[in-house]
Amino acid sequence: MTTEGQAELWESISPAASRRLLAAAVEAFAEQGYHATTTRAIAARAGMSPAGLYVHYRSKSDLLFEIARLGHTAVLAAVEHELEAAAEPPARIAAFVRASTVWHARNQTAARVIQYELRALDEQQFAEIRPLRARFVKLLRREIQAGRRSGAFAVEDVAAATNALLSLTIDVARWYRPRGNPSPERLGAAYGRVAVAMLT
Amino acid sequence: MTTEGQAELWESISPAASRRLLAAAVEAFAEQGYHATTTRAIAARAGMSPAGLYVHYRSKSDLLFEIARLGHTAVLAAVEHELEAAAEPPARIAAFVRASTVWHARNQTAARVIQYELRALDEQQFAEIRPLRARFVKLLRREIQAGRRSGAFAVEDVAAATNALLSLTIDVARWYRPRGNPSPERLGAAYGRVAVAMLT
Repeated sequence: MTTEGQAELWESISPAASRRLLAAAVEAFAEQGYHATTTRAIAARAGMSPAGLYVHYRSKSDLLFEIARLGHTAVLAAVEHELEAAAEPPARIAAFVRASTVWHARNQTAARVIQYELRALDEQQFAEIRPLRARFVKLLRREIQAGRRSGAFAVEDVAAATNALLSLTIDVARWYRPRGNPSPERLGAAYGRVAVAMLT
Repeated sequence: MTTEGQAELWESISPAASRRLLAAAVEAFAEQGYHATTTRAIAARAGMSPAGLYVHYRSKSDLLFEIARLGHTAVLAAVEHELEAAAEPPARIAAFVRASTVWHARNQTAARVIQYELRALDEQQFAEIRPLRARFVKLLRREIQAGRRSGAFAVEDVAAATNALLSLTIDVARWYRPRGNPSPERLGAAYGRVAVAMLT
Protein backbone atom coordinates (compact mmCIF):
# COMPACT_ATOMS: atom_id res chain seq x y z
CA MET A 1 0.00 0.00 0.00
CA THR A 2 2.67 2.46 1.09
CA THR A 3 4.88 1.39 -1.77
CA GLU A 4 2.01 1.79 -4.23
CA GLY A 5 1.27 5.27 -2.96
CA GLN A 6 4.91 6.23 -3.16
CA ALA A 7 5.18 4.87 -6.69
CA GLU A 8 2.41 7.29 -7.66
CA LEU A 9 4.27 10.17 -6.06
CA TRP A 10 7.54 9.56 -7.93
CA GLU A 11 6.14 8.20 -11.17
CA SER A 12 6.85 11.36 -13.17
CA ILE A 13 10.52 11.38 -12.11
CA SER A 14 13.14 10.09 -14.47
CA PRO A 15 15.64 8.52 -14.77
CA ALA A 16 14.65 5.45 -12.77
CA ALA A 17 17.71 5.88 -10.53
CA SER A 18 16.41 9.26 -9.26
CA ARG A 19 13.06 7.65 -8.61
CA ARG A 20 14.65 4.79 -6.66
CA LEU A 21 16.69 7.23 -4.58
CA LEU A 22 13.61 9.26 -3.59
CA ALA A 23 11.75 6.12 -2.52
CA ALA A 24 14.82 4.90 -0.59
CA ALA A 25 15.25 8.28 1.11
CA VAL A 26 11.62 8.37 2.27
CA GLU A 27 11.92 4.89 3.77
CA ALA A 28 15.20 5.69 5.50
CA PHE A 29 13.99 9.05 6.86
CA ALA A 30 10.78 7.42 8.12
CA GLU A 31 12.68 4.69 9.96
CA GLN A 32 15.65 6.58 11.40
CA GLY A 33 14.75 10.24 11.12
CA TYR A 34 16.41 12.70 8.74
CA HIS A 35 19.39 13.54 10.95
CA ALA A 36 20.38 9.92 11.65
CA THR A 37 20.21 8.91 7.97
CA THR A 38 23.40 8.95 5.88
CA THR A 39 23.54 9.36 2.10
CA ARG A 40 25.46 6.07 2.14
CA ALA A 41 22.45 4.30 3.70
CA ILE A 42 20.08 5.84 1.15
CA ALA A 43 22.33 4.81 -1.74
CA ALA A 44 22.57 1.26 -0.34
CA ARG A 45 18.77 0.97 -0.10
CA ALA A 46 18.52 2.05 -3.73
CA GLY A 47 21.14 -0.53 -4.72
CA MET A 48 23.68 2.14 -5.65
CA SER A 49 27.07 3.42 -4.53
CA PRO A 50 27.35 6.73 -2.62
CA ALA A 51 29.07 8.23 -5.68
CA GLY A 52 26.13 7.06 -7.78
CA LEU A 53 23.76 9.02 -5.52
CA TYR A 54 25.69 12.28 -6.04
CA VAL A 55 25.18 12.01 -9.79
CA HIS A 56 21.47 12.61 -9.11
CA TYR A 57 21.31 14.66 -5.88
CA ARG A 58 23.93 16.98 -4.42
CA SER A 59 23.04 16.20 -0.80
CA LYS A 60 20.71 14.56 1.67
CA SER A 61 19.02 17.93 2.03
CA ASP A 62 18.35 18.03 -1.74
CA LEU A 63 16.57 14.69 -1.44
CA LEU A 64 14.38 15.93 1.42
CA PHE A 65 13.59 19.10 -0.51
CA GLU A 66 12.61 17.15 -3.62
CA ILE A 67 10.36 14.85 -1.53
CA ALA A 68 8.71 17.88 0.10
CA ARG A 69 8.27 19.67 -3.24
CA LEU A 70 6.72 16.62 -4.91
CA GLY A 71 4.46 15.90 -1.95
CA HIS A 72 3.13 19.42 -1.57
CA THR A 73 2.58 19.71 -5.33
CA ALA A 74 0.81 16.34 -5.49
CA VAL A 75 -1.65 16.95 -2.65
CA LEU A 76 -2.51 20.39 -4.06
CA ALA A 77 -3.15 18.84 -7.48
CA ALA A 78 -5.30 16.09 -5.94
CA VAL A 79 -7.46 18.59 -4.09
CA GLU A 80 -7.80 20.98 -7.03
CA HIS A 81 -8.77 18.09 -9.31
CA GLU A 82 -11.46 16.90 -6.88
CA LEU A 83 -12.84 20.43 -6.46
CA GLU A 84 -13.46 20.74 -10.22
CA ALA A 85 -16.33 18.26 -10.02
CA ALA A 86 -18.11 19.86 -7.04
CA ALA A 87 -20.39 22.91 -7.22
CA GLU A 88 -22.12 23.72 -3.91
CA PRO A 89 -20.21 24.60 -0.69
CA PRO A 90 -20.97 21.35 1.21
CA ALA A 91 -19.95 19.23 -1.80
CA ARG A 92 -16.82 21.32 -2.26
CA ILE A 93 -15.76 21.00 1.39
CA ALA A 94 -16.41 17.26 1.23
CA ALA A 95 -14.31 17.13 -1.96
CA PHE A 96 -11.38 18.98 -0.39
CA VAL A 97 -11.39 16.87 2.77
CA ARG A 98 -11.90 13.63 0.85
CA ALA A 99 -9.04 14.31 -1.59
CA SER A 100 -6.61 15.39 1.13
CA THR A 101 -7.56 12.45 3.38
CA VAL A 102 -7.15 9.90 0.58
CA TRP A 103 -3.80 11.43 -0.36
CA HIS A 104 -2.46 11.40 3.22
CA ALA A 105 -3.66 7.81 3.78
CA ARG A 106 -2.14 6.54 0.51
CA ASN A 107 1.10 8.46 0.95
CA GLN A 108 1.32 8.11 4.73
CA THR A 109 5.06 7.46 4.86
CA ALA A 110 6.07 10.31 2.56
CA ALA A 111 3.56 12.65 4.18
CA ARG A 112 4.90 11.83 7.64
CA VAL A 113 8.49 12.49 6.56
CA ILE A 114 7.48 15.78 4.93
CA GLN A 115 5.55 17.07 7.96
CA TYR A 116 7.98 15.85 10.64
CA GLU A 117 11.25 16.84 8.95
CA LEU A 118 10.23 20.12 7.33
CA ARG A 119 12.41 22.10 9.72
CA ALA A 120 15.50 20.32 8.41
CA LEU A 121 15.17 22.27 5.14
CA ASP A 122 17.38 25.34 4.81
CA GLU A 123 15.85 28.80 4.43
CA GLN A 124 16.06 28.91 0.65
CA GLN A 125 14.52 25.46 0.30
CA PHE A 126 11.70 26.29 2.69
CA ALA A 127 11.04 29.52 0.78
CA GLU A 128 10.04 27.35 -2.19
CA ILE A 129 7.73 25.13 -0.11
CA ARG A 130 6.05 27.90 1.88
CA PRO A 131 3.87 29.23 -1.01
CA LEU A 132 2.60 25.70 -1.72
CA ARG A 133 1.53 25.33 1.92
CA ALA A 134 -0.04 28.78 1.91
CA ARG A 135 -1.99 27.96 -1.26
CA PHE A 136 -3.38 24.80 0.33
CA VAL A 137 -4.56 26.64 3.45
CA LYS A 138 -5.98 29.53 1.41
CA LEU A 139 -7.90 27.15 -0.83
CA LEU A 140 -9.65 25.61 2.18
CA ARG A 141 -10.25 28.94 3.93
CA ARG A 142 -11.87 30.36 0.80
CA GLU A 143 -14.23 27.39 0.52
CA ILE A 144 -15.32 27.85 4.14
CA GLN A 145 -15.81 31.60 3.61
CA ALA A 146 -17.80 31.02 0.39
CA GLY A 147 -20.08 28.64 2.28
CA ARG A 148 -20.63 31.21 5.01
CA ARG A 149 -21.50 33.93 2.50
CA SER A 150 -23.99 31.69 0.72
CA GLY A 151 -25.61 30.77 4.03
CA ALA A 152 -24.73 27.08 3.64
CA PHE A 153 -22.37 27.12 6.64
CA ALA A 154 -23.14 28.42 10.11
CA VAL A 155 -19.57 28.26 11.44
CA GLU A 156 -18.40 31.45 13.15
CA ASP A 157 -14.68 30.97 13.73
CA VAL A 158 -13.26 30.50 10.21
CA ALA A 159 -9.63 30.32 11.40
CA ALA A 160 -10.40 27.55 13.92
CA ALA A 161 -12.48 25.63 11.38
CA THR A 162 -9.71 25.88 8.77
CA ASN A 163 -7.07 24.60 11.19
CA ALA A 164 -9.40 21.88 12.42
CA LEU A 165 -10.05 20.54 8.91
CA LEU A 166 -6.37 20.71 7.97
CA SER A 167 -5.52 18.69 11.09
CA LEU A 168 -8.26 16.19 10.35
CA THR A 169 -6.69 15.25 7.01
CA ILE A 170 -2.96 15.82 7.69
CA ASP A 171 -2.99 13.82 10.94
CA VAL A 172 -4.13 10.80 8.90
CA ALA A 173 -0.45 10.37 7.94
CA ARG A 174 0.44 9.93 11.62
CA TRP A 175 -2.03 7.23 12.57
CA TYR A 176 -3.26 5.57 9.37
CA ARG A 177 -2.05 2.10 8.46
CA PRO A 178 -3.90 0.06 5.80
CA ARG A 179 -4.29 -2.94 8.14
CA GLY A 180 -7.33 -2.74 10.39
CA ASN A 181 -8.57 0.54 8.95
CA PRO A 182 -11.08 1.46 6.23
CA SER A 183 -9.62 1.99 2.74
CA PRO A 184 -8.30 5.51 2.00
CA GLU A 185 -11.43 6.08 -0.13
CA ARG A 186 -13.87 5.03 2.63
CA LEU A 187 -12.02 7.06 5.23
CA GLY A 188 -12.02 10.04 2.87
CA ALA A 189 -15.78 9.78 2.32
CA ALA A 190 -16.44 9.49 6.08
CA TYR A 191 -14.19 12.47 6.83
CA GLY A 192 -15.89 14.49 4.10
CA ARG A 193 -19.21 13.97 5.91
CA VAL A 194 -17.66 14.77 9.30
CA ALA A 195 -16.29 18.04 7.86
CA VAL A 196 -19.64 19.11 6.42
CA ALA A 197 -21.34 18.32 9.75
CA MET A 198 -18.77 20.51 11.49
CA LEU A 199 -19.54 23.54 9.32
CA THR A 200 -23.32 23.35 8.93
CA MET B 1 5.84 28.80 26.83
CA THR B 2 7.25 25.44 25.85
CA THR B 3 9.57 25.46 28.79
CA GLU B 4 6.74 26.34 31.15
CA GLY B 5 4.63 23.52 29.77
CA GLN B 6 7.48 21.09 30.09
CA ALA B 7 8.20 22.21 33.63
CA GLU B 8 4.63 21.23 34.47
CA LEU B 9 5.14 17.82 32.90
CA TRP B 10 8.27 16.99 34.91
CA GLU B 11 7.45 18.84 38.11
CA SER B 12 6.66 15.71 40.09
CA ILE B 13 9.99 14.10 39.19
CA SER B 14 12.80 14.16 41.67
CA PRO B 15 15.73 14.48 42.09
CA ALA B 16 16.25 17.68 40.09
CA ALA B 17 18.92 15.96 37.96
CA SER B 18 16.35 13.45 36.61
CA ARG B 19 14.04 16.35 35.84
CA ARG B 20 16.78 18.23 34.00
CA LEU B 21 17.66 15.13 31.97
CA LEU B 22 14.06 14.62 30.84
CA ALA B 23 13.78 18.25 29.71
CA ALA B 24 17.15 18.00 27.94
CA ALA B 25 16.15 14.75 26.20
CA VAL B 26 12.88 16.23 24.91
CA GLU B 27 14.71 19.22 23.44
CA ALA B 28 17.41 17.08 21.84
CA PHE B 29 14.92 14.55 20.40
CA ALA B 30 12.78 17.39 19.03
CA GLU B 31 15.75 19.03 17.28
CA GLN B 32 17.69 16.03 15.97
CA GLY B 33 15.29 13.12 16.15
CA TYR B 34 15.63 10.22 18.58
CA HIS B 35 18.05 8.16 16.49
CA ALA B 36 20.52 10.99 15.87
CA THR B 37 20.64 12.00 19.54
CA THR B 38 23.41 10.61 21.77
CA THR B 39 23.20 10.20 25.54
CA ARG B 40 26.36 12.34 25.63
CA ALA B 41 24.46 15.23 23.96
CA ILE B 42 21.56 14.87 26.40
CA ALA B 43 23.91 14.87 29.39
CA ALA B 44 25.71 17.96 28.04
CA ARG B 45 22.42 19.85 27.64
CA ALA B 46 21.57 19.01 31.24
CA GLY B 47 25.00 20.20 32.37
CA MET B 48 26.11 16.70 33.36
CA SER B 49 28.66 14.09 32.38
CA PRO B 50 27.57 10.98 30.45
CA ALA B 51 28.35 8.91 33.56
CA GLY B 52 26.09 11.25 35.55
CA LEU B 53 23.23 10.47 33.18
CA TYR B 54 23.55 6.71 33.74
CA VAL B 55 23.04 7.21 37.47
CA HIS B 56 19.47 8.25 36.64
CA TYR B 57 18.58 6.45 33.39
CA ARG B 58 20.00 3.23 32.01
CA SER B 59 19.70 4.27 28.36
CA LYS B 60 18.40 6.73 25.81
CA SER B 61 15.44 4.42 25.36
CA ASP B 62 14.64 4.63 29.09
CA LEU B 63 14.47 8.42 28.76
CA LEU B 64 12.10 8.21 25.78
CA PHE B 65 9.95 5.70 27.66
CA GLU B 66 9.76 7.93 30.74
CA ILE B 67 8.81 10.94 28.58
CA ALA B 68 6.09 8.91 26.86
CA ARG B 69 4.77 7.52 30.15
CA LEU B 70 4.62 10.95 31.80
CA GLY B 71 3.02 12.56 28.74
CA HIS B 72 0.33 9.93 28.28
CA THR B 73 -0.46 9.95 32.01
CA ALA B 74 -0.62 13.74 32.13
CA VAL B 75 -2.97 14.23 29.18
CA LEU B 76 -5.28 11.50 30.53
CA ALA B 77 -5.34 13.20 33.94
CA ALA B 78 -6.03 16.60 32.35
CA VAL B 79 -8.98 15.24 30.38
CA GLU B 80 -10.43 13.27 33.28
CA HIS B 81 -10.16 16.30 35.53
CA GLU B 82 -11.97 18.54 33.02
CA LEU B 83 -14.71 15.93 32.51
CA GLU B 84 -15.57 15.95 36.22
CA ALA B 85 -17.08 19.43 35.95
CA ALA B 86 -19.23 18.71 32.86
CA ALA B 87 -22.62 16.97 32.92
CA GLU B 88 -24.39 16.95 29.54
CA PRO B 89 -22.92 15.31 26.40
CA PRO B 90 -22.12 18.56 24.51
CA ALA B 91 -20.41 20.05 27.58
CA ARG B 92 -18.51 16.79 28.14
CA ILE B 93 -17.27 16.61 24.54
CA ALA B 94 -16.25 20.26 24.70
CA ALA B 95 -14.44 19.52 27.99
CA PHE B 96 -12.53 16.56 26.51
CA VAL B 97 -11.50 18.44 23.38
CA ARG B 98 -10.64 21.60 25.30
CA ALA B 99 -8.46 19.80 27.85
CA SER B 100 -6.63 17.74 25.22
CA THR B 101 -6.11 20.78 22.96
CA VAL B 102 -4.78 22.93 25.80
CA TRP B 103 -2.44 20.13 26.87
CA HIS B 104 -1.08 19.54 23.35
CA ALA B 105 -0.59 23.28 22.79
CA ARG B 106 1.19 23.80 26.12
CA ASN B 107 3.31 20.68 25.79
CA GLN B 108 3.82 20.88 22.02
CA THR B 109 7.48 19.85 22.05
CA ALA B 110 7.07 16.86 24.37
CA ALA B 111 3.86 15.81 22.61
CA ARG B 112 5.57 15.93 19.22
CA VAL B 113 8.47 13.82 20.43
CA ILE B 114 6.09 11.30 21.99
CA GLN B 115 3.92 10.93 18.88
CA TYR B 116 6.74 10.96 16.31
CA GLU B 117 9.20 8.69 18.11
CA LEU B 118 6.81 6.18 19.66
CA ARG B 119 8.01 3.43 17.33
CA ALA B 120 11.51 3.72 18.79
CA LEU B 121 10.24 2.12 22.02
CA ASP B 122 10.89 -1.59 22.41
CA GLU B 123 8.00 -4.05 22.68
CA GLN B 124 7.97 -4.22 26.46
CA GLN B 125 8.07 -0.44 26.81
CA PHE B 126 5.29 0.01 24.28
CA ALA B 127 3.22 -2.60 26.14
CA GLU B 128 3.11 -0.18 29.08
CA ILE B 129 2.09 2.78 26.93
CA ARG B 130 -0.56 1.00 24.86
CA PRO B 131 -3.21 0.76 27.65
CA LEU B 132 -2.86 4.51 28.34
CA ARG B 133 -3.50 5.26 24.66
CA ALA B 134 -6.41 2.82 24.58
CA ARG B 135 -7.96 4.43 27.67
CA PHE B 136 -7.78 7.87 26.06
CA VAL B 137 -9.50 6.68 22.87
CA LYS B 138 -12.12 4.70 24.82
CA LEU B 139 -12.92 7.69 27.01
CA LEU B 140 -13.71 9.81 23.94
CA ARG B 141 -15.62 7.05 22.15
CA ARG B 142 -17.82 6.50 25.21
CA GLU B 143 -18.67 10.18 25.42
CA ILE B 144 -19.70 10.21 21.75
CA GLN B 145 -21.77 7.05 22.21
CA ALA B 146 -23.46 8.45 25.34
CA GLY B 147 -24.42 11.57 23.40
CA ARG B 148 -25.90 9.46 20.62
CA ARG B 149 -27.98 7.41 23.05
CA SER B 150 -29.31 10.52 24.75
CA GLY B 151 -30.25 12.03 21.40
CA ALA B 152 -27.87 14.98 21.86
CA PHE B 153 -25.63 13.90 18.96
CA ALA B 154 -26.75 13.04 15.44
CA VAL B 155 -23.39 11.62 14.28
CA GLU B 156 -23.65 8.22 12.57
CA ASP B 157 -20.07 7.04 12.16
CA VAL B 158 -18.73 6.88 15.74
CA ALA B 159 -15.34 5.48 14.69
CA ALA B 160 -14.73 8.28 12.18
CA ALA B 161 -15.89 10.93 14.64
CA THR B 162 -13.60 9.53 17.36
CA ASN B 163 -10.57 9.53 15.07
CA ALA B 164 -11.44 12.98 13.77
CA LEU B 165 -11.61 14.50 17.26
CA LEU B 166 -8.41 12.77 18.34
CA SER B 167 -6.63 14.21 15.28
CA LEU B 168 -8.06 17.64 15.94
CA THR B 169 -6.38 17.83 19.35
CA ILE B 170 -3.23 15.72 18.81
CA ASP B 171 -2.26 17.52 15.59
CA VAL B 172 -2.07 20.75 17.60
CA ALA B 173 1.38 19.56 18.72
CA ARG B 174 2.54 19.54 15.08
CA TRP B 175 1.49 23.05 14.06
CA TYR B 176 0.97 25.08 17.23
CA ARG B 177 3.51 27.72 18.25
CA PRO B 178 2.60 30.39 20.83
CA ARG B 179 3.62 33.24 18.49
CA GLY B 180 0.90 34.34 16.13
CA ASN B 181 -1.69 31.91 17.48
CA PRO B 182 -4.45 32.18 20.09
CA SER B 183 -3.49 31.13 23.62
CA PRO B 184 -3.86 27.39 24.40
CA GLU B 185 -7.01 28.24 26.39
CA ARG B 186 -8.64 30.20 23.55
CA LEU B 187 -7.73 27.56 20.99
CA GLY B 188 -9.13 24.87 23.31
CA ALA B 189 -12.41 26.73 23.72
CA ALA B 190 -12.72 27.25 19.93
CA TYR B 191 -11.95 23.59 19.25
CA GLY B 192 -14.48 22.52 21.89
CA ARG B 193 -17.17 24.41 19.95
CA VAL B 194 -15.97 22.98 16.62
CA ALA B 195 -16.20 19.48 18.09
CA VAL B 196 -19.74 19.94 19.39
CA ALA B 197 -20.79 21.36 15.99
CA MET B 198 -19.35 18.26 14.34
CA LEU B 199 -21.44 15.87 16.44
CA THR B 200 -24.77 17.68 16.69
